[in-house]
Amino acid sequence: MITEYYAPTDVIFGKDAVQSCGKQVRNHGGKKLLIHYGSERVVRNGLMGKITAQLDDEGIAYTLLGGAQPNPRLSLVRKGIEIGKAENIDFILAVGGGSAIDSAKAIAYGLANEGDVWDFYIGAREPVACLPIGVVLTLSATGSEMSNSSVITNEEGDLKRGYNSDLSRPCFALLDPTLTYSVPPYQTSCGTADIMMHTIERFFHSGKTLSLTDSLAMALVRNVIENGKKVLQDPEDYDARANLMWASSLSHNGLMQTGNEQRGDWACHQMEHELSGKYDVAHGAGLTAIWGTWARYVFMEDPERFAAFGEGVFGIKRTSDPARDAMQAIKAMESCFTSIHMPISLKELGVEPSEEDLDELAEKASFFGKRTIGAFKILDKEDIRAIYAAARG
Amino acid sequence: MITEYYAPTDVIFGKDAVQSCGKQVRNHGGKKLLIHYGSERVVRNGLMGKITAQLDDEGIAYTLLGGAQPNPRLSLVRKGIEIGKAENIDFILAVGGGSAIDSAKAIAYGLANEGDVWDFYIGAREPVACLPIGVVLTLSATGSEMSNSSVITNEEGDLKRGYNSDLSRPCFALLDPTLTYSVPPYQTSCGTADIMMHTIERFFHSGKTLSLTDSLAMALVRNVIENGKKVLQDPEDYDARANLMWASSLSHNGLMQTGNEQRGDWACHQMEHELSGKYDVAHGAGLTAIWGTWARYVFMEDPERFAAFGEGVFGIKRTSDPARDAMQAIKAMESCFTSIHMPISLKELGVEPSEEDLDELAEKASFFGKRTIGAFKILDKEDIRAIYAAARG
Repeated sequence: MITEYYAPTDVIFGKDAVQSCGKQVRNHGGKKLLIHYGSERVVRNGLMGKITAQLDDEGIAYTLLGGAQPNPRLSLVRKGIEIGKAENIDFILAVGGGSAIDSAKAIAYGLANEGDVWDFYIGAREPVACLPIGVVLTLSATGSEMSNSSVITNEEGDLKRGYNSDLSRPCFALLDPTLTYSVPPYQTSCGTADIMMHTIERFFHSGKTLSLTDSLAMALVRNVIENGKKVLQDPEDYDARANLMWASSLSHNGLMQTGNEQRGDWACHQMEHELSGKYDVAHGAGLTAIWGTWARYVFMEDPERFAAFGEGVFGIKRTSDPARDAMQAIKAMESCFTSIHMPISLKELGVEPSEEDLDELAEKASFFGKRTIGAFKILDKEDIRAIYAAARG
Repeated sequence: MITEYYAPTDVIFGKDAVQSCGKQVRNHGGKKLLIHYGSERVVRNGLMGKITAQLDDEGIAYTLLGGAQPNPRLSLVRKGIEIGKAENIDFILAVGGGSAIDSAKAIAYGLANEGDVWDFYIGAREPVACLPIGVVLTLSATGSEMSNSSVITNEEGDLKRGYNSDLSRPCFALLDPTLTYSVPPYQTSCGTADIMMHTIERFFHSGKTLSLTDSLAMALVRNVIENGKKVLQDPEDYDARANLMWASSLSHNGLMQTGNEQRGDWACHQMEHELSGKYDVAHGAGLTAIWGTWARYVFMEDPERFAAFGEGVFGIKRTSDPARDAMQAIKAMESCFTSIHMPISLKELGVEPSEEDLDELAEKASFFGKRTIGAFKILDKEDIRAIYAAARG
């Protein structure tokens, strides 16, 4: 089989990486920027000033658009596109975490293509271009700074949909771990969970794998577990923040699936999208709230794979009973989520869906019965509903 | 500190990856190609026909230039530049291993800049541009398919010099592991050694490291050792060939130094360049012939680092005596080189330098006393001579 690894983003990594912002924008041809960000914190704490000072020095014009929020909204994307058209924007600079970056990607698609940008997210048609995007990262989580992914929530109908295309891979990403020192513990752990899950989703599928990719994946998950705990102890532990930040990029830039026959399972992500689309919960927490239930539902398809994961990540010795080893691995992973204060049930997530809610979630996750999800085990609408139900806790 | 990770090469990986050649060249704007290769084997075995058929289909013109050999020669580079100018070449396609790719990079520099291309290799001036380069890889070794490096030998004076610039990173690389099935055992092991050494050189330095990068590095070396042995047992073991091929790219594309304070030691590479420049030995074999001697000469600078390597790669339990653990690690690495039939002394390499030869090698490796080499321990001309002398075995 053929796989592609294409991660062209120029990553500048380390303290004060933001100081290369002006030069990077210039090198990539930006003349009129839309700077898209989330919370006003990045303005108040002086980060935006450091960026705009460099742009002023380079003689590069810019317009600011804040307000990107977790589960970024289509309405703000539309507003960004409107501003971008009015001001002949030719480059989008995202300052923030996955929300600002994903929203920036959607704006960049909208400005480079005719018609309604939501079409791309519902699979109605494909974009032919995308404006160039740069990133100043302030949160280690989604890996959107190097990935081809963007996930947007349409408030009309609480629909959360993702679109992947190499067109949207950022041309540069500035990764300064110290910018994440002020991220509160809960958001930090949600990010840690999301980082791990991007690799875990890729690890579980039903095709052949490249053992080098498996080894790198397990090394990454081990490292993220270790450092996810460390940052809760000391939010200003530079090394721990640095490891998480780089892991966030590597976990989602394609490295963790290269040479594998399938691109991963992704059922947990798809089920989580409906949870956060409906309940506006944090993505990372939504993922951990269903992963253990998903794992118990599917592991007998190939318990050896879970056993290999348990051995590689947690050092769980293999026995003659792979099903037992697999369950040990699942429990160890859940303990790890608990240790960074992430939920392992919907109840712990603070969500208590009614029977009707379960129907609705399963309808949406299966695109109203039109698709199955998963690759390790293929799940139809009934399977999906069963997992949501069992995950209630 | 700031480090950069920039590996924009679009990698197509798997059996028959070569079938995307025409499309890739078109997407990257190639209209008139110089196809640069080494041995005529790639013509005889039909690979070249598969490539040119696609170019014909796309209406893309091309000229062939074979003859790139290990330790690629400046004279052939000059010939390629001459042909390229005469024929208005706008894209270089390298078909082969590191020799063809490095030679292609030098031709690409020569065609995009005024003046003598050798200037870049001796540090006299910097290129401002480079023609785009594509790669069809037939040997897992140098990692030049994703790297910014190119090493050329000037026959006048047996000088082997490298030049690194992101300008020369290939825009695409087609990696089909089956193309390496026919590589003979000795060349296979030389490649395996080179792959490992690109990561090992980066692992040993005197600055701070990112633990994620350390973990990925040790996972890669473990994997390469395992698969380097497997391919000697079965040259057509697809999985083993695939792991080595992807490891060759990852070992030298910058991933194994991201977040580290220093970019590695590289003394062994620099000493080896003089060996292969003078004796025309295989690069990988030259590296293993001096590594153990280098390691014994330097390890007391930081025995803990060698002990960590031994634990991470070979599972050697740490004791209260890091010097002892370090020596265990060095011996384990040498055993590993021996197990894939690589030399661990100059004598085993088939080279027996006289006292005058040692002087000459040390003169050249130190740029006639004008530079030191190494980062784990800084080595001057006397140190370098001592290592060459002790490596005779």
